[in-house]
Amino acid sequence: MEIVLPYSRLFEMTRAVFLAMGCSPAHADTAAASLLIADLRGVDSHGVARLSGYVRLWEAGRINPQPNIRLIHETPSTGVVDGDSGLGLVVAPMAMKIAIEKARSVGSGWISVQNSNHFGIAGTYAMMASREDMIGMAMTNASAIVAPTFSKEKLLGTNPIAVAVPAGEEPDFVADFATTTAANGKLEICQRLGKDVPSGWVQDAEGHDTNDAHALKNGGALLPLGSDRERSSHKGYMLGSIVDIFSGVLSGANFGPWVPPFPAYIPMPENQPGKGIGHFMGAMRIDGFRKAEDFKKDMDMWIRRFRSAKPSSASPSVIVPGDPERAMEKERMENGIPLLESVLDDLNQVNLKMGLDKISA
Amino acid sequence: MEIVLPYSRLFEMTRAVFLAMGCSPAHADTAAASLLIADLRGVDSHGVARLSGYVRLWEAGRINPQPNIRLIHETPSTGVVDGDSGLGLVVAPMAMKIAIEKARSVGSGWISVQNSNHFGIAGTYAMMASREDMIGMAMTNASAIVAPTFSKEKLLGTNPIAVAVPAGEEPDFVADFATTTAANGKLEICQRLGKDVPSGWVQDAEGHDTNDAHALKNGGALLPLGSDRERSSHKGYMLGSIVDIFSGVLSGANFGPWVPPFPAYIPMPENQPGKGIGHFMGAMRIDGFRKAEDFKKDMDMWIRRFRSAKPSSASPSVIVPGDPERAMEKERMENGIPLLESVLDDLNQVNLKMGLDKISA
Repeated sequence: MEIVLPYSRLFEMTRAVFLAMGCSPAHADTAAASLLIADLRGVDSHGVARLSGYVRLWEAGRINPQPNIRLIHETPSTGVVDGDSGLGLVVAPMAMKIAIEKARSVGSGWISVQNSNHFGIAGTYAMMASREDMIGMAMTNASAIVAPTFSKEKLLGTNPIAVAVPAGEEPDFVADFATTTAANGKLEICQRLGKDVPSGWVQDAEGHDTNDAHALKNGGALLPLGSDRERSSHKGYMLGSIVDIFSGVLSGANFGPWVPPFPAYIPMPENQPGKGIGHFMGAMRIDGFRKAEDFKKDMDMWIRRFRSAKPSSASPSVIVPGDPERAMEKERMENGIPLLESVLDDLNQVNLKMGLDKISA
Repeated sequence: MEIVLPYSRLFEMTRAVFLAMGCSPAHADTAAASLLIADLRGVDSHGVARLSGYVRLWEAGRINPQPNIRLIHETPSTGVVDGDSGLGLVVAPMAMKIAIEKARSVGSGWISVQNSNHFGIAGTYAMMASREDMIGMAMTNASAIVAPTFSKEKLLGTNPIAVAVPAGEEPDFVADFATTTAANGKLEICQRLGKDVPSGWVQDAEGHDTNDAHALKNGGALLPLGSDRERSSHKGYMLGSIVDIFSGVLSGANFGPWVPPFPAYIPMPENQPGKGIGHFMGAMRIDGFRKAEDFKKDMDMWIRRFRSAKPSSASPSVIVPGDPERAMEKERMENGIPLLESVLDDLNQVNLKMGLDKISA
């Protein structure tokens, strides 16, 4: 059973929770908007379903609701932002704003972020740039649940990459993906249904491929994009590493196995080399390369050619990155956001804890 | 049977071929060095084995041996280089030099390149930046032999990405990989041996997974990294698309199915929207983010932690990107570069054609 809530109501409720945590009104607005883009775009695992997790991090003293977010090092086109342990949902958009300002002034802007927390979906921030006639990029590292090729130890997070590119008459190209074969959310669906997972998604504690949807909880690991060595999992491992280095090492945040976990009950890794979680944001002005209208005309041509590619027999038509999420956003903005009963219960416990009103259907 | 030639001899021979094509001595030096890095690093498919292919492109009038390579648009941190139909082996390092100069002046530099040709291996150019205490990135598009997820048409090239990151006591991190599951070179090895290929590498003309090593020649396509939808081939498709957009659309080069093919006997695609092949080069100064020595200490820690990860049972130890190629480079610089007899024959035909001396063992 699920209930459907209008976006505006879910937004007010989410905003109230952030206010109750001690965030300023402006930060609560930003955090609620950043979080709920995931629900609007159909990435249910990263949206309001995680709100209770953010609250638990705050209770554990790991989120500073009134951070002094600031640029601690810069050149005209680069810099590092210290998130002061704030919500990634607030720190990340501020970092992207700085990247966009730098791009406006010298063509491109690149900000690595230290001392932050989880930021929801990467696409949110990449799309801030594409709205300004810029190409936007956003990445983050995350706690280690992925094993590099040949490793039985977990050393990388799902480390997503998002790239948003403006077009002309066509909507933006928006790629947003974890550098693993399967998202953790897909694994959880199989767990709930008592189903096996396809081969190539996870390995067991000894590092062998398994169909057990519970393998990750039992000492196993998610596999990098590619699945196994024969199908080039080392390329997914390299991608996840690049995200970790750009987000963690370049900023002075934690990296590899030292990245703070999202669940507040998991102890912090010992001997951490850096501060909090790291992100990486980039913006490049289209007209830093060629006339924006010429670029957009070519992007329209690119998008139309790919969308009209002949599909394989028995396949749906070819998808341009960003199309399904945009359709979902439109649908949910009009008709509301469906919430599983378990998510609703979870939210009501948060509301109770924070002295807020209960949500009912 | 194979013969082994010292690097210096192969270099002189290669340089002589470029001089005979009409390249200036400086360009011939650069082109020979750019090409042979592939042989030194063990990427035999992209090195001197392709020299005859470059010569055929020149014969077909598709390579200008005396190009006027120039910046046609710029901001302090971005720009577009017109390669004037020159060898990618010459155009790409010049573009990376400009990116490095821009990084020196404003923190980062990003150059998209139009009107170029094939450039060998991407890692070559990324490593130019890491030698300067910068993170280097290099990409290129290439002619379409890869089918997007759900497509039976080939719309993308193998579109490689390289990222080189400097460390302190440890050698650089160097990732360099095609955004497909399998490299074309691996497919060719199976063809020569009459072997099947693993599932997930190629699809047939109808878009179905096949083990036929000859499928690509018979109307099939290489598969994006991930192999199939269940194992997230759409992520490999997104990566290949990003490379195509950054290299082709952003520069005004060709993109998608319109990228010029490497084999000179294949006709040029009709109604091309841009000029030649596109590349994308980036350089970010480490100290544009934090003190270079602090970063390098952390990179050493990163590298050592990953290299010492516990391997899965029956696996070799965990590899840090760049390690195998660096070991190969050392070995081949000391002991020479092995050439297959077929490659030697091919080179001797080139030498005959260009009025140069025959190579013997």
